[in-house]
Amino acid sequence: MLDNLLRPRSVAVIGASTQPGKIGYTVVKNLIEGGYSGRIYPVNPNATELLGLKVYPNVSAIPDTVDAAIITIPAKAVLSAVEECGRKGVKGLIVITSGFSEVGQKDLEEALVATAHRYGMRVLGPNIVGVLSNADRFNGSFAPFLPLPGKASLVSQSGALLIAIDAATFIRRVGFDKLVSIGNMSDVDFADLITWLDQDENTSCISLYIEGFKEGRRFIEAARNAQKPIIALKAGVSAHGAAAAASHTGSLAGAAKVYGAAFQQAGVVQASDLNNLFDRTLALSLQPPMRGDHLLIITNGGGVGVLATDAAEKYGLPLQFAPADLQNELRQYMPEFGSPKNPVDLTGMANSDWYFDAIRHALPHTWVDGLAVLYCETAMTNPQEIAESIKRAVDESGVTNKPVAVSFVGGERSEEAMRWLVEHGIPAYAAPDVAVNALAALREFARNKETLSENFTTCDSNDIERACRIIAHARAEGRDVLTEIEAKEVFAAYNLPVAETRLATSEQEAVRLAHEIGFPVVMKIVSPDIIHKSDAGGVKVNIKDDAGVREAYRTILNNAKSYKPDARIHGIAVQEMAPWGTEVILGSVNDPTFGPTVMFGLGGIFVEVLKDVTFRVAPVSAAQAQRMLDEIRGAPVLAGVRGEGPRDRQALADTICRYATMVLDLADEISESDANPVLVYEVGKGVKVVDARIILKKKPLK
Amino acid sequence: MLDNLLRPRSVAVIGASTQPGKIGYTVVKNLIEGGYSGRIYPVNPNATELLGLKVYPNVSAIPDTVDAAIITIPAKAVLSAVEECGRKGVKGLIVITSGFSEVGQKDLEEALVATAHRYGMRVLGPNIVGVLSNADRFNGSFAPFLPLPGKASLVSQSGALLIAIDAATFIRRVGFDKLVSIGNMSDVDFADLITWLDQDENTSCISLYIEGFKEGRRFIEAARNAQKPIIALKAGVSAHGAAAAASHTGSLAGAAKVYGAAFQQAGVVQASDLNNLFDRTLALSLQPPMRGDHLLIITNGGGVGVLATDAAEKYGLPLQFAPADLQNELRQYMPEFGSPKNPVDLTGMANSDWYFDAIRHALPHTWVDGLAVLYCETAMTNPQEIAESIKRAVDESGVTNKPVAVSFVGGERSEEAMRWLVEHGIPAYAAPDVAVNALAALREFARNKETLSENFTTCDSNDIERACRIIAHARAEGRDVLTEIEAKEVFAAYNLPVAETRLATSEQEAVRLAHEIGFPVVMKIVSPDIIHKSDAGGVKVNIKDDAGVREAYRTILNNAKSYKPDARIHGIAVQEMAPWGTEVILGSVNDPTFGPTVMFGLGGIFVEVLKDVTFRVAPVSAAQAQRMLDEIRGAPVLAGVRGEGPRDRQALADTICRYATMVLDLADEISESDANPVLVYEVGKGVKVVDARIILKKKPLK
Repeated sequence: MLDNLLRPRSVAVIGASTQPGKIGYTVVKNLIEGGYSGRIYPVNPNATELLGLKVYPNVSAIPDTVDAAIITIPAKAVLSAVEECGRKGVKGLIVITSGFSEVGQKDLEEALVATAHRYGMRVLGPNIVGVLSNADRFNGSFAPFLPLPGKASLVSQSGALLIAIDAATFIRRVGFDKLVSIGNMSDVDFADLITWLDQDENTSCISLYIEGFKEGRRFIEAARNAQKPIIALKAGVSAHGAAAAASHTGSLAGAAKVYGAAFQQAGVVQASDLNNLFDRTLALSLQPPMRGDHLLIITNGGGVGVLATDAAEKYGLPLQFAPADLQNELRQYMPEFGSPKNPVDLTGMANSDWYFDAIRHALPHTWVDGLAVLYCETAMTNPQEIAESIKRAVDESGVTNKPVAVSFVGGERSEEAMRWLVEHGIPAYAAPDVAVNALAALREFARNKETLSENFTTCDSNDIERACRIIAHARAEGRDVLTEIEAKEVFAAYNLPVAETRLATSEQEAVRLAHEIGFPVVMKIVSPDIIHKSDAGGVKVNIKDDAGVREAYRTILNNAKSYKPDARIHGIAVQEMAPWGTEVILGSVNDPTFGPTVMFGLGGIFVEVLKDVTFRVAPVSAAQAQRMLDEIRGAPVLAGVRGEGPRDRQALADTICRYATMVLDLADEISESDANPVLVYEVGKGVKVVDARIILKKKPLK
Repeated sequence: MLDNLLRPRSVAVIGASTQPGKIGYTVVKNLIEGGYSGRIYPVNPNATELLGLKVYPNVSAIPDTVDAAIITIPAKAVLSAVEECGRKGVKGLIVITSGFSEVGQKDLEEALVATAHRYGMRVLGPNIVGVLSNADRFNGSFAPFLPLPGKASLVSQSGALLIAIDAATFIRRVGFDKLVSIGNMSDVDFADLITWLDQDENTSCISLYIEGFKEGRRFIEAARNAQKPIIALKAGVSAHGAAAAASHTGSLAGAAKVYGAAFQQAGVVQASDLNNLFDRTLALSLQPPMRGDHLLIITNGGGVGVLATDAAEKYGLPLQFAPADLQNELRQYMPEFGSPKNPVDLTGMANSDWYFDAIRHALPHTWVDGLAVLYCETAMTNPQEIAESIKRAVDESGVTNKPVAVSFVGGERSEEAMRWLVEHGIPAYAAPDVAVNALAALREFARNKETLSENFTTCDSNDIERACRIIAHARAEGRDVLTEIEAKEVFAAYNLPVAETRLATSEQEAVRLAHEIGFPVVMKIVSPDIIHKSDAGGVKVNIKDDAGVREAYRTILNNAKSYKPDARIHGIAVQEMAPWGTEVILGSVNDPTFGPTVMFGLGGIFVEVLKDVTFRVAPVSAAQAQRMLDEIRGAPVLAGVRGEGPRDRQALADTICRYATMVLDLADEISESDANPVLVYEVGKGVKVVDARIILKKKPLK
């Protein structure tokens, strides 16, 4: 469907102007100068000829089918033009015009889309620079020229940045087939473009500049289904930056951590900054994914070797020594004072033959998953010869499923040699750590894709009806907060291992329940009006006998009444006292972009002081749950500290998956929730949810 | 003194060769082609003429004073050449020749230095590329040309990297006056060069590539005394990288954390990687320090504004909104849909006049401490005009004590405009976050320098003699580990607030001591052979009465005896039971590079799991101690968590200073020590050292 927008065979320019400097003039000029392979129909009631082309008074007058109309007229005139396009049978609209939702004109934008859809037209924009594509020499934009040709395609939410990037492609040697300005995303969004670009024969890597969007799940779905690497630079990750992004695009910027989680779950690789977006895009567009962690570094200089080694650790590919047989092999291609270990140091004497031999033999070795070739420019060697040797060695090795990245540190000769390498499909960078970072991107892509192929845990026999009944009961009482016992019942309906908790409404009942549950027990106030139970003196632990139960019952009741005299009191919960275990927290929020999202962290100081938590968009696969356990800083705690045995990660991961299923199933009901603490026991001994909280979404009054 | 090496007026090249390709030929050729302003005397017994210069058979034959001899002959011939240079009265030696300590020939290197010193000559090298200086057009090296002229000077521990950087200066537009290859540092080291370059009229920023060195305190002293900014890229910070560095230079690579601490204490700014070294060097060499945290960003594109805002937070300069008066002022120079808040968004319509006005009025505002000017290349604006406007606005503002950095994102026109800016003293970068990072470097420089001016806490009335007596006593018994009681006595000699602890050798004495100290008490085994007292069942806490003391005494003794039957037992310590407080740990190590070094961290899980610790080289100033408290991740714990009041930071910082004084005073005696735990109480209530450990340096047998 988007072919009409991204590869149109004919375009009308509505608002084509004879006045140089006007966007309507620039677009026609750019189409012509870009060498567009399709047909161009300028539309303007007040002109007859423009830059050698016949001008039509209106779209209807065009004697041909029109794939796309590029609209540059003022916002107030857009609606009738769209109507006319629809009647003419135009297939898609590229709406450059601004003055819609970004300045508060949300209704006008909605009317634009509604009109277009009535005629089956898709809308790119409004408020965009346009679309550029080398494949069709199509510059349907007001950016002055097509980018350096290449295999990546970029979708940018900032128009100004797209124009600047367009020019920068030539300086940075990163080539693109398409540059697409996405603007207000009134209709066509990131998800649409990802899906289309994934099928585009001229695109090998999808590169995104994102400020913020709303339909997070559509994005994840599209990205998960894509085969090609996707890389995203998310702007507005600082508190202040998020505010700036919001004022800039009028869209909601979700929490950076949730975007990060969603990217990972969607298989999207992240860029840390603009340079990094260029650098990683280059590697992802030219090289295959890196399928294992074994990075080999070949260098002619110890210094750059050390810097690359530092970078390898920093970017998640810590170096290991090469296996003995590979070392023995490599030792042949270096002087005695070289090192075959890793980094493989061919020494400053290394000429192009040595590089050739080392690469030719290292790359096919089964141990090697990816190769970084470093070169420090010397007076004695010719960078171009080294470059050609590298390319020839890679080709002659016959290896096509392992990535190679190169760094030449030097002057103009090195720059030229790197240009040549890039033109021949090998990414090359002016600093060693950048080459390593590029390989790390290829590794992240492979890792992310692996987790995508994993199945979600089947959470059988969930009693959704029971959960909904409990929620309905609370709502019937006009409550948005479930009591602890209700929350635990909802959890239990999803087979979450809650500590047994029952409601007593008299001392006698409390004693009976304590016997049924078994001593020792915990007792807590149950009141919809008391959320912080401990503060109210509403919790007593380690109660060992009947007398203790009776005393606790009275004390808690008195405390609650003096804490909040008008509190509604449902009774007192008698709860199994769970044995001590490692404290963790699960929680959920409803992210404005991604919807039900699960949080995991270690309890106590870890959450309170360090904010050491990690997120995933629900549902969560077993493997993703395991990754959550690993990626918090306090992860070693789960391996057991101070002589404890390792904790039951399996049960904990399973609990996270079930929790995610619950908040997803009940997405229309649950606003926030947490299980805090959850106690995690030794391997094989499971977990126990000690306390539970569910806050419901506020429902509109019927 | 180093003038003879770095600004010689005459040089002899010993080993000058007539064979192109030989280093002895290249050096003479480079001196001539570089346009050296001094006199060149090639020395070679087998030649009479070289590249138009008369060749001398030996140094003695030169009919002139020789400031520096550049030595390129094989290692085995160097000693006699040095001897001859000495006799001739040569003033300094630039020893390019390799084959010394880096390949295990440590004796030869020591002999070289000893001989040189006998004649009052300083030695640069051996195993170096040489010295390059634009000021004298002096290329005394085998790097093929002088670097792009500029105000920075670089000292590199990697020769290959120096040659590559030399070439790269032209590509990266970062100019240098001097490039100095430091090699094996047999004599002239980083400290010497820092001190000299700080006085060098042609150097405004000292840039260092460091793999590792030994005399850390000389380095700190020299850097502290320098007035000019110093920036260091420390290679070998990963575990694997440190190993690579060691094999590369034969020097000890200290722990990355200790280097980082030392840099901060020395006022040295760090670079994160090679690009960052170039980028930060450029800013530090051209711009004044940034004296406050208020960064203002002026931009024509929301996208780059958001990216810069993210970077500001990441690099420690989180953005704040500009004050109202500044906003009102700026509002005049932008269209209605612009934003004067910060980032100041002039919008894509911004021309060079708008930039001029905004900068001209913002820079002098007292609120503004530093300015980042961002520009996204557009079709409508001319980057060169924008650049010239920026420069003119800065000049006309008359402000010279606030830094400005620029980023133009775009193509060749932007690149040219940025070249022009750099030539006119304004650092400019191709990505917005890099400009922000450069300003952050200028801020770090100012912050570090501020702490350097602070005095060290005077730790009065330390009883060094008492401490030494205790240590001597342990040594007399052949011990390297002090008992807890001894360690606490040493601590107490430095007025560290230890929990009162006394030794009982009988039940009766224990009871008496418990009364004197006051109940409750703690009792612990005291044995030089039992270090992990708890594991041995050698600790009992919260003992409340005489019977408890007696029982604990017997139990601890029995446990100790069955744990280690042959353990020497000094008795049982009776200790004041300190009330609960926040647990922290102090410790010290003897770093191979920097000597006595103090560690601070939060106790328990923070140290065990998170390795959340920070270091300083002793002595530690009060302000540095406060920075230590702030820079651990768990820092909020000291502000009080879970309803506690804020902890006594003052007392804790004071304790760190005293601890540092102790380990510095006793540097010859103490190998490692710790105070673990130290309990920190509420403000005004001080701290208490609960347990103490001191391990002595092993002394050589007399």
